[in-house]
Amino acid sequence: MDVTQRIEQALEAAIQRAEVPESPPKLAAAIRYAVFPGGARIRPRLCLAVAQACGDDRPQISDAAAVAIELMHCGSLVHDDLPAFDNAQTRRGKPSVHSACGECEAILTGDGLIVLAFEVLARSAVAAPERLPGLILNLSRFSGVSHGIIAGQAWECEPSIISLDAYHRAKTGSLFAAATASGAIAAGYAPEPWVVLGERIGEAYQVADDIQDMLADPEAWGKPCGQDALNGRPNALRELGLDGAVCRLKLLLEGAIDSIPACPGAAELRKAILAQSSRFLPEGLVRRAA
Amino acid sequence: MDVTQRIEQALEAAIQRAEVPESPPKLAAAIRYAVFPGGARIRPRLCLAVAQACGDDRPQISDAAAVAIELMHCGSLVHDDLPAFDNAQTRRGKPSVHSACGECEAILTGDGLIVLAFEVLARSAVAAPERLPGLILNLSRFSGVSHGIIAGQAWECEPSIISLDAYHRAKTGSLFAAATASGAIAAGYAPEPWVVLGERIGEAYQVADDIQDMLADPEAWGKPCGQDALNGRPNALRELGLDGAVCRLKLLLEGAIDSIPACPGAAELRKAILAQSSRFLPEGLVRRAA
Repeated sequence: MDVTQRIEQALEAAIQRAEVPESPPKLAAAIRYAVFPGGARIRPRLCLAVAQACGDDRPQISDAAAVAIELMHCGSLVHDDLPAFDNAQTRRGKPSVHSACGECEAILTGDGLIVLAFEVLARSAVAAPERLPGLILNLSRFSGVSHGIIAGQAWECEPSIISLDAYHRAKTGSLFAAATASGAIAAGYAPEPWVVLGERIGEAYQVADDIQDMLADPEAWGKPCGQDALNGRPNALRELGLDGAVCRLKLLLEGAIDSIPACPGAAELRKAILAQSSRFLPEGLVRRAA
Repeated sequence: MDVTQRIEQALEAAIQRAEVPESPPKLAAAIRYAVFPGGARIRPRLCLAVAQACGDDRPQISDAAAVAIELMHCGSLVHDDLPAFDNAQTRRGKPSVHSACGECEAILTGDGLIVLAFEVLARSAVAAPERLPGLILNLSRFSGVSHGIIAGQAWECEPSIISLDAYHRAKTGSLFAAATASGAIAAGYAPEPWVVLGERIGEAYQVADDIQDMLADPEAWGKPCGQDALNGRPNALRELGLDGAVCRLKLLLEGAIDSIPACPGAAELRKAILAQSSRFLPEGLVRRAA
């Protein structure tokens, strides 16, 4: 099974748990709508790539780790798109969850996806319960209110006291760090050496996102452009210019590759990260900066 | 240490984890505001009462179980009060979180409390990791989108296809069931026999809440009355009349007491439940129905 199929199947199994006869049908539909069809699934890919580099001795647990990260990510997108935040009407080339299903269902969809992420981890732990505390603590750390994506989103409401770096680390880097660290934990490795790799890839991805926010074709990108300026948010392209931002993106990716800890599959992992990150920016934008 | 002090200390320790220097300060303040000062802390009391009835051999884990339930409850109140749902301006006798801290911080406070609930459980598991999967699955089941409080809240947005019983079971009964079941798990007991006890107490509490929604003094109650009619929600008092609703409340409590599974502290638990539930309705309302 290739990695795309592996991720989609594991996500499908998780979402079906929310679709039992007792579930409120509109909520169950909104949850499916928020998760399928997905974006590039970069975070679960990264999680599985790290698990595989570490031997992937418990694929059931690494599947769960990858799914939990993606569900948490999808949930955060649903909440970030709400009228109180970005008020984004589109996401992944279709109406955002609150546009399509209403604001109530969107709030509950985000809540439900957070809960489901932890549930999926606990369910997988039958295979190796000793790995569960680390997986839960890792997901909560990088999602939560001090260092996680929730903190990152909060900094958008209290923006004056944080640097661009710290903001990006919490807003985007954190869930990439969760991905690499949980891939390692799922395969029985210690998470800490893997955190920097995820953080750097995440920061690079955020710089690419900032560039797209100002220069992308919204149709191709699947969401509206110009949101950072509209919402008064820091943006790497505005701060550094196109050449500066692309240079920063490349430095971050080089730093990421350099940080890969010793593991059986380091060479394969390096290739996988280069292949994935080459898709962070569309060709046209890379050429404009070259 | 008495139980009130035990709960407040354990909650304080959990909330301080959200107040590290890296936390967005407004978000950290909103999270504290949502949790302190508390209401009656009925759910964590119930959780600890069951744990004690089962021997409470790992107080660190039962503390965490009680805290996790209360954080999940506080988070759900913050989201239920949002403009998209009840648009409640007051809660526990002070401005609701979105009124005091803004809608963005309120959404993130609810999200953060859900994450923190799971984190607290994982942190406590050092003492007995084999109890963690059960605790996580129990909390996610009774919070989640099929049988949990999130489902209960969703039924308010899709109300036409559910009975009053099923609505109350999800909206309120579920977190009481989480409380009794997790008290049992925390003390090394199987959760299933304890679910009915929590569900019945929760349903009784919801009937009392419905009565107060129509008849209470809003000052004494700490939140606005008449919300069910305003929001087109089912209400036991409207459906059954005052005598009928009070009768139903008493039957549910008797059924709850009868369902207590065999355990070393069953007699003490019975007393604790009767003492707690006698405060579900203010004296004046009970006299009106007598």
